[in-house]
Amino acid sequence: MAVTKTARATKKRGSLGRPEGRTESREALLDAAERYFAERGYAAANLREIAEDANVTQAMANYWFGTKQELFRQVYLRRGAWLATCRMELLDEVTAKKRYALEDILRAYITPPFQLRESAQGRAFLRLQARLHAEPDETAYALRREVYDQPVRAYVKILANLLPRLTDEHLYLRFAQFIGIYIYILSDAHRIEEISGIRRRPSAAKLIDEIVRFTASGFKG
Amino acid sequence: MAVTKTARATKKRGSLGRPEGRTESREALLDAAERYFAERGYAAANLREIAEDANVTQAMANYWFGTKQELFRQVYLRRGAWLATCRMELLDEVTAKKRYALEDILRAYITPPFQLRESAQGRAFLRLQARLHAEPDETAYALRREVYDQPVRAYVKILANLLPRLTDEHLYLRFAQFIGIYIYILSDAHRIEEISGIRRRPSAAKLIDEIVRFTASGFKG
Repeated sequence: MAVTKTARATKKRGSLGRPEGRTESREALLDAAERYFAERGYAAANLREIAEDANVTQAMANYWFGTKQELFRQVYLRRGAWLATCRMELLDEVTAKKRYALEDILRAYITPPFQLRESAQGRAFLRLQARLHAEPDETAYALRREVYDQPVRAYVKILANLLPRLTDEHLYLRFAQFIGIYIYILSDAHRIEEISGIRRRPSAAKLIDEIVRFTASGFKG
Repeated sequence: MAVTKTARATKKRGSLGRPEGRTESREALLDAAERYFAERGYAAANLREIAEDANVTQAMANYWFGTKQELFRQVYLRRGAWLATCRMELLDEVTAKKRYALEDILRAYITPPFQLRESAQGRAFLRLQARLHAEPDETAYALRREVYDQPVRAYVKILANLLPRLTDEHLYLRFAQFIGIYIYILSDAHRIEEISGIRRRPSAAKLIDEIVRFTASGFKG
């Protein structure tokens, strides 16, 4: 399957990592689940169909994940952990330099999710993520906390050094707006091309540039 | 069509109004549906339960709406039409003044959805809206188009006058970011209080001020 190849090809950062000792089948099941949850939503997705699609027996699926909720959790955490690792590594890279700008920090945060957009499987995750970000309930909170808290705190700490006159409250309020922007732009729900009459969908590079510019002005403003 | 009637019936801005000629039962059914769709999601919501909750026979519910899809459409368009009307009226109010700033235009756009946050029923709609904004599929497109296209075009036209050096493409790309921000902040999924250690949830007025300030800087930057 395409995703597997992509994942294997990006061994360095960018690797969606296949921990040793896990079979291809387990990963295939997570891939299938990711697509089903993205396409049908959590409630309508069906464990039996997912197992069939992944060519895995339902007994095996039950053994690995037990419940639909646990399967969802593992699907989410698999890419979530990759996202968090990329973000921390990119932040280290940027801040290791003698001089860096606010824009470099913002770019580091949103580059990994835009990489996910390059594969169908990654786009499935982005749909899941957009949905989860629209959910104020406790399960969604807990999952987001697990994936995002460490990077968000680390990024805000660096932003605080660059913008010393902002209080913590203001920094977090602005960071939340930054998150709202990239989640929405990545969800492909914005219809920029349609409503504006632009012929071509803007490239990822262009969207990243636009978000970095807009948000940097917002943080400084 | 329902939208027209709803729009006509909300004579004063701010009223979520019960349009004349519609029975209380029909509105009660829409209210119940709004809550069920928000709490359980579209797939899991059940027409029979919604009718029971609204104290309406299922025959009546079928007569009014026929399908779950049509019921969802009417739930969405009821408040969507109110939102669109408010936005157009506020834009007219602002631009009728001799002088107005970018900030006044941005504030006019996001004030109506923040009003919805004041009631439990309005908050149910905001959850629906956040979910729908995370959906790139055709049905979601069509509904959003019906509710948002006219106001978005009208607002961007005014913004173009205020920011003459921006191309249409840039204006729309920035407007999309503005939408992403308010949808996310309104979804209550941002956990600003939790992650930042702020004791109190920021008030609607404060959130509006923050968004207007951040976004105005973004548009000008």
